[in-house]
Amino acid sequence: MEKISSLQNSRIKNLKLLSEKSSERKRLGLFVIEGLKECMMALEGGYEFVEIYFSEHYTLNDLYALYSNSNMPLFELTNAVFSKVAYRDNTSEVIALVKMKTHHLKHLKLSEIPLLIGLESVEKPGNLGAVIRTMDAVNADAVIICDPRTDIYNPNVIRNSVGTLFVRQIAVCSNEELLSWLIEKNIKSYAAALSAKHFYHQQNLKTSCILIFGTESDGLTDFWLKNAGGQIKIPMLGHNDSLNISNSVAIMVYEVKRQRDFK
Amino acid sequence: MEKISSLQNSRIKNLKLLSEKSSERKRLGLFVIEGLKECMMALEGGYEFVEIYFSEHYTLNDLYALYSNSNMPLFELTNAVFSKVAYRDNTSEVIALVKMKTHHLKHLKLSEIPLLIGLESVEKPGNLGAVIRTMDAVNADAVIICDPRTDIYNPNVIRNSVGTLFVRQIAVCSNEELLSWLIEKNIKSYAAALSAKHFYHQQNLKTSCILIFGTESDGLTDFWLKNAGGQIKIPMLGHNDSLNISNSVAIMVYEVKRQRDFK
Repeated sequence: MEKISSLQNSRIKNLKLLSEKSSERKRLGLFVIEGLKECMMALEGGYEFVEIYFSEHYTLNDLYALYSNSNMPLFELTNAVFSKVAYRDNTSEVIALVKMKTHHLKHLKLSEIPLLIGLESVEKPGNLGAVIRTMDAVNADAVIICDPRTDIYNPNVIRNSVGTLFVRQIAVCSNEELLSWLIEKNIKSYAAALSAKHFYHQQNLKTSCILIFGTESDGLTDFWLKNAGGQIKIPMLGHNDSLNISNSVAIMVYEVKRQRDFK
Repeated sequence: MEKISSLQNSRIKNLKLLSEKSSERKRLGLFVIEGLKECMMALEGGYEFVEIYFSEHYTLNDLYALYSNSNMPLFELTNAVFSKVAYRDNTSEVIALVKMKTHHLKHLKLSEIPLLIGLESVEKPGNLGAVIRTMDAVNADAVIICDPRTDIYNPNVIRNSVGTLFVRQIAVCSNEELLSWLIEKNIKSYAAALSAKHFYHQQNLKTSCILIFGTESDGLTDFWLKNAGGQIKIPMLGHNDSLNISNSVAIMVYEVKRQRDFK
């Protein structure tokens, strides 16, 4: 097993580049996962590991569950090198280089009465991560992102999703593709919009549905305002007229679950 | 009016220090607000402005509402200097130096049936900002932070609260102070805890209450697990056993409002 002590090592440079640049991730079809918990989630989700890097704080014992399952080349990094490659404040001790998956709409498997979350586009990777974490918590079917530029393997998506990204269904497509698919699957769409006449809690959300959200700054485009099956909004009783996007999603999807399943 | 074109200017150095260092903010009792919207909120909230800095992109006309009300020394910064002092990606064109307020529990004014949010401690300033933004959205009475080390004037608190911090009631105190105050005011406390037997939606939340949350990593300490009047939890149906703290708060306070006020 190789031990790396120089920041000039080409593997280290590559790792840092993949961590920082979406274009590089797309070019190579590879991305970086930091943290043992997140790595274990990716393993569970069937991701293919290419290389594993760990700091000298770690022993092979700590890594056994990961290593014995993925059987990939291991590299030990000096603490100094590890801390330069890691993007977290609290060192997470293990970093893996992993192959991207594709995220086609057509691959989604749906439950009997699907609950889906749609995001027309994503401003901050951290918010997307928090939305995926909430989607996991309510056991929704999928998060669908209508923005082909979105890079779901941004380190902040992974971190804020606490790795749930890897064990949950995510699709990336265009607005038009999603609309056709919803019609085909007979799933009702609700646009979250300030212009809505009805509040989310007044709506019967017990049947198959997708809740679609726009950006915090501009909301949804006309596409969804025109084409969605309904519009709903959250009461805003304060000085500001919007919520953090992941909070809006959380409030609405938990209301769906309250109506459908909670006793 | 002075125009500043050098990063070595002592005012600029001071501004940067105040933006970056909590210790410096506490030492001087001053903090920095970026963005016209946020500044206007602070003005509305009765904050005392010391100085206003704006980039040469701005005209005095743009600033008129702010300047005519606060009547403070104005400094124009070259774009190069402004972009070095600003912490946002998209330049916000105006930065103000403002005096801190005190945030005593005893100053809180309560509605007839108070709804309060308690945070035992705060890990990430951005999350605190999002909680305050949600508190504003439901028109709750106050956010109370039981951690005297908390610096609510961290730029990320201000940014993620979208300035609502300045027009809403915030108190900072110790666990013991809050508990005595709750008893005196006859407000029921609910600890958000995984160990709770009851779910939030099963609880009658129509009477005066405070919902108290711990950190994402460790939850609440024994103090609130022992002393709170009740414990409630959010159903977690996925792989991960917790939500982003601001999402937990949003789900629960909107349920309180749904039970109390929403038709």
